[in-house]
Amino acid sequence: MDMPVIKIYMWEGRTKEAKKKIVSGITDVFVKEGVNPEAVTVIIEDVKKENWGCAGKLADE
Amino acid sequence: MDMPVIKIYMWEGRTKEAKKKIVSGITDVFVKEGVNPEAVTVIIEDVKKENWGCAGKLADE
Amino acid sequence: MDMPVIKIYMWEGRTKEAKKKIVSGITDVFVKEGVNPEAVTVIIEDVKKENWGCAGKLADE
Amino acid sequence: MDMPVIKIYMWEGRTKEAKKKIVSGITDVFVKEGVNPEAVTVIIEDVKKENWGCAGKLADE
Amino acid sequence: MDMPVIKIYMWEGRTKEAKKKIVSGITDVFVKEGVNPEAVTVIIEDVKKENWGCAGKLADE
Amino acid sequence: MDMPVIKIYMWEGRTKEAKKKIVSGITDVFVKEGVNPEAVTVIIEDVKKENWGCAGKLADE
Repeated sequence: MDMPVIKIYMWEGRTKEAKKKIVSGITDVFVKEGVNPEAVTVIIEDVKKENWGCAGKLADE
Repeated sequence: MDMPVIKIYMWEGRTKEAKKKIVSGITDVFVKEGVNPEAVTVIIEDVKKENWGCAGKLADE
Repeated sequence: MDMPVIKIYMWEGRTKEAKKKIVSGITDVFVKEGVNPEAVTVIIEDVKKENWGCAGKLADE
Repeated sequence: MDMPVIKIYMWEGRTKEAKKKIVSGITDVFVKEGVNPEAVTVIIEDVKKENWGCAGKLADE
Repeated sequence: MDMPVIKIYMWEGRTKEAKKKIVSGITDVFVKEGVNPEAVTVIIEDVKKENWGCAGKLADE
Repeated sequence: MDMPVIKIYMWEGRTKEAKKKIVSGITDVFVKEGVNPEAVTVIIEDVKKENWGCAGKLADE
């Protein structure tokens, strides 16, 4: 059975409600592709802006 | 601007059409949370069943 | 020299003792495959249940 | 139920037999910590030496 | 447009100044390879020594 | 001893020469921060454009 693992890197600060919607939304995307929802693992990494770089700068610079 | 990165590990073998739906579906999940679609990066890793272990066995055993 | 890197994603809450056993156990697995223990890197990510989704729900729902 | 995900980055070239031992060995490490073997996911990434850098050089330099 | 994502796993404890230099230094490496700095994403994971294993032991043993 | 691991996700297609420069450049960034070059591990993942999504589309759409 196909068991996709989805790792999310996003800025810290989202509410638990938002995380619920993200997890359930992403699971639905795979269910539409025929995957059993029980087999979908989503792992969220809340990243401090100090630990996120874009265009050569930290996101909180 | 929040720029979530989503890494997907899934068995190899999905069609390009399926990957299009997965990328667009996941992007929509974040757009609903207020993220700019341009800022959503999705990276797919097609994993051979020989490289996927569950319950102590390779997925193609 | 082969230098495998092993990243572990697991629920937060394990004791340091448990982590010692996990790191030493995993290193032994690779030593049995001929790898020098000094060359085995194990990185643990303690994941909050709020950040772990399975079957479309957060693990602490 | 705790569902650890273990991602392995190692040089390409190991036999399927070796991968079987690695997956089963790592699963046993978590079973000893009370995890259900069915809940242990191991994902192997075979990395070309050309894509592995150590001490500032590619592993096949 | 090429949009490399660079994930860094390093021991926790570095100052914000050090992280600024790491992010800007890594971005420059890709700019020299013709990548637009705006397209380079760097994500840092500060890892506790308790969560880092080398030679079969935790880094803070 | 601090042993940073740097994982790079980038589009496939770069030459080996470019990868040498990327690995050596990134290692230098950490050497300037006091890290022993021998302790810096860089792992490159060449990602097919078909496996890279941005703005809801595959990079090769």
